[in-house]
Amino acid sequence: MKPRVLILGAGFAGLEAAQRLAGKPVEVTLIDRQNHHLFQPLLYQVATSGLSAPEICQPVRAIFSDARNIRVVMDEITGIDLDKREVATAQGHHPFDYLVVALGSRTSWFGREDWERHAPGLKTIGDALSIRSRLLRAFESAETTRDQTERERLMTIVIVGGGPTGVELAGACAELARHVLRRDFRAINPAQTRVVLIEAMDRILPQLPERLGQAAAHELERLGVEVRTGTRVREVDADGVTVGDAERIPSANVVWAAGVQASPLGRLLGAETDRAGRVRVLEDLSLPGHRNVFVAGDMAAIQAPDGSPVPGVAPAAMQMGRFLGSLIAREATATQPADRPAFRYLDKGSMATIGRSAAVAKIGPLEFGGFPAWLAWMFIHLLFLVGFRNKIAVLLQWTYAYFAYKRGARVILPEPEPLPIPTPPAR
Amino acid sequence: MKPRVLILGAGFAGLEAAQRLAGKPVEVTLIDRQNHHLFQPLLYQVATSGLSAPEICQPVRAIFSDARNIRVVMDEITGIDLDKREVATAQGHHPFDYLVVALGSRTSWFGREDWERHAPGLKTIGDALSIRSRLLRAFESAETTRDQTERERLMTIVIVGGGPTGVELAGACAELARHVLRRDFRAINPAQTRVVLIEAMDRILPQLPERLGQAAAHELERLGVEVRTGTRVREVDADGVTVGDAERIPSANVVWAAGVQASPLGRLLGAETDRAGRVRVLEDLSLPGHRNVFVAGDMAAIQAPDGSPVPGVAPAAMQMGRFLGSLIAREATATQPADRPAFRYLDKGSMATIGRSAAVAKIGPLEFGGFPAWLAWMFIHLLFLVGFRNKIAVLLQWTYAYFAYKRGARVILPEPEPLPIPTPPAR
Repeated sequence: MKPRVLILGAGFAGLEAAQRLAGKPVEVTLIDRQNHHLFQPLLYQVATSGLSAPEICQPVRAIFSDARNIRVVMDEITGIDLDKREVATAQGHHPFDYLVVALGSRTSWFGREDWERHAPGLKTIGDALSIRSRLLRAFESAETTRDQTERERLMTIVIVGGGPTGVELAGACAELARHVLRRDFRAINPAQTRVVLIEAMDRILPQLPERLGQAAAHELERLGVEVRTGTRVREVDADGVTVGDAERIPSANVVWAAGVQASPLGRLLGAETDRAGRVRVLEDLSLPGHRNVFVAGDMAAIQAPDGSPVPGVAPAAMQMGRFLGSLIAREATATQPADRPAFRYLDKGSMATIGRSAAVAKIGPLEFGGFPAWLAWMFIHLLFLVGFRNKIAVLLQWTYAYFAYKRGARVILPEPEPLPIPTPPAR
Repeated sequence: MKPRVLILGAGFAGLEAAQRLAGKPVEVTLIDRQNHHLFQPLLYQVATSGLSAPEICQPVRAIFSDARNIRVVMDEITGIDLDKREVATAQGHHPFDYLVVALGSRTSWFGREDWERHAPGLKTIGDALSIRSRLLRAFESAETTRDQTERERLMTIVIVGGGPTGVELAGACAELARHVLRRDFRAINPAQTRVVLIEAMDRILPQLPERLGQAAAHELERLGVEVRTGTRVREVDADGVTVGDAERIPSANVVWAAGVQASPLGRLLGAETDRAGRVRVLEDLSLPGHRNVFVAGDMAAIQAPDGSPVPGVAPAAMQMGRFLGSLIAREATATQPADRPAFRYLDKGSMATIGRSAAVAKIGPLEFGGFPAWLAWMFIHLLFLVGFRNKIAVLLQWTYAYFAYKRGARVILPEPEPLPIPTPPAR
């Protein structure tokens, strides 16, 4: 009987692992609770009306339709039994010979999960659609209200967290207000929208060299974004946020991009986890004491060759997935046991886009910004976007947005779950 | 002071009326509860994963961004006071000199509104996204269930109503199952999906000549659709439908495309309405006794020059909107009162697409089917789709679908409102 490989999660790690196992003499089952792979790096563009949801979602089944040894299951994981070598889901049981756990991460409010209601995170397609609706609704309400204070609150966008997501979201929000919506209202001037980016550390984009972080901050300010580094969020409520020493920023649009934690399902593995809930794995990504169980992507805590922790980014997840897919394929066909290689993270660089024609990038030894970085950013994101149709569709949207200064997905859909514009309590 | 023109509804009628008034010496306010104009004729393609929602939704503000005399308001109509010449909305009051009421129609279950839960209609973008999710989820559940009876129920799609919506939906569902999903599952064979089209009358597409209706039925059958004319739906419940003389069709996917009724807000006008709730108007589309109040589109009950009622279709709504826009523009600039012309509906024809390369069309005196009708259908729908970006995006999707036999929007998004796969009661 062929070895049964069970992969939990169809994110970057799970997808790459499965792709390496396509056509190999193994029976693969890939389980995800969504029917699609989500291209998270472009999620902020869905939140700001630049792309539609299906353009960054690829049905997992369609990816593997020709890989007859891969079975895709849409289901919710409910339990992992390492001794019985079996994973329980809402609708069944899945035995395994090899297990790859790659369930990703979710937003963390660092113990203040009650802030979620007022400051949603941006990790799922549902998050992005909710934020998009709320943003567009806020402008609609600003156009009709007669209360000047309320209008300013509706037209203030606060983004907490100066990492790539926060930076890209802030830039996209500023462009939405200043360019896309510019001529569309009669009572308000969207160009007066206040966009505030709040970062507790003394700089933004800490994963990039200082110089590039400064360049990004400069570009954001050129777009009208208030970049507030060294500023801590004290409180988030329906009315806005309190930062630093009791400064109030009334806002109807607060987005939390300040942190993530690994999927809580990692605890089902019974292994040691770090502060972010990531599972400490051996150098072959296996679970200590369980040679056939692996953890990959945002859930895995492991060090890069230089001793720094491997970051929770898409390229790292893809490298881990490829590593595991190859490793399992090799062992499945091996006639005798062999030593396993160690996973070695190769940091190819990092980049962030700030808006039309502006980005910062570090690729290998190269550090650059401006238009070349923006082109590089677009090229790399199109390249890795899954699905030929999606590549073409996104390229079309970007070309259109570039020349027409418009965005194709300014649509308020029925809310997936109630996430109304928070109104301040009566005073 | 310039005359104030208030247009209720940004559907085909309201949009055309507003477009005729752009740049004219009138102050136009266009109110809709959505932020977008919906291109309803392609709604069935969103429901069957062919198009994404933003591709058939155009933000109303973006359409009128350069028409400085047109103000767009996203709000809910709550009252119409004809004597005070004022419309009340959830957030304010809007006085008018001219009023155009064009709030469209909604699904009607003919007194069995309790069927809505099990057999949703297809009139809004929310409907389409719900149906899409339910359909895709049903196939996912069919893949995992071990109960053969339940699997068959999950893989049965029942469409009630043999008009253009029902026919196009049935064809698109059959193609989705037989071609798009064909190789994507391992436990089920989507080609075995049962698609049943139920029509109470003895033929489908009654607005087209008999010969074309037969051609459409033949094309549907070629795709594997069971066309059941002369069949009445007796009951709809969580388990499926009962038709004719107590025949049960167990189905987890029932869609109601059997009828519409005019917006209930027509009753606020206090005028006579017909059985479908449409307001009887004079030949200039004005309300009897209210020369400055007009009703247009699906809400208006009026006769065509040949004595037949003007049908509730997009071309009729557009003609009414254009007629009213021109009429109001003329009166606003006239120095002395003049006689009003009568609205004359020009029936340019009708068409329906059945699937890849197949359609039926009657355009003027021409009646044709097959590939030429399909090309004509595509051309006309692209032509009238609002927004340059949408035209290009939809053309791309269709080209892709034609050559790759794939669909670009097979994504299960978080449900706008709970519309789960109905499960039969325990027995």
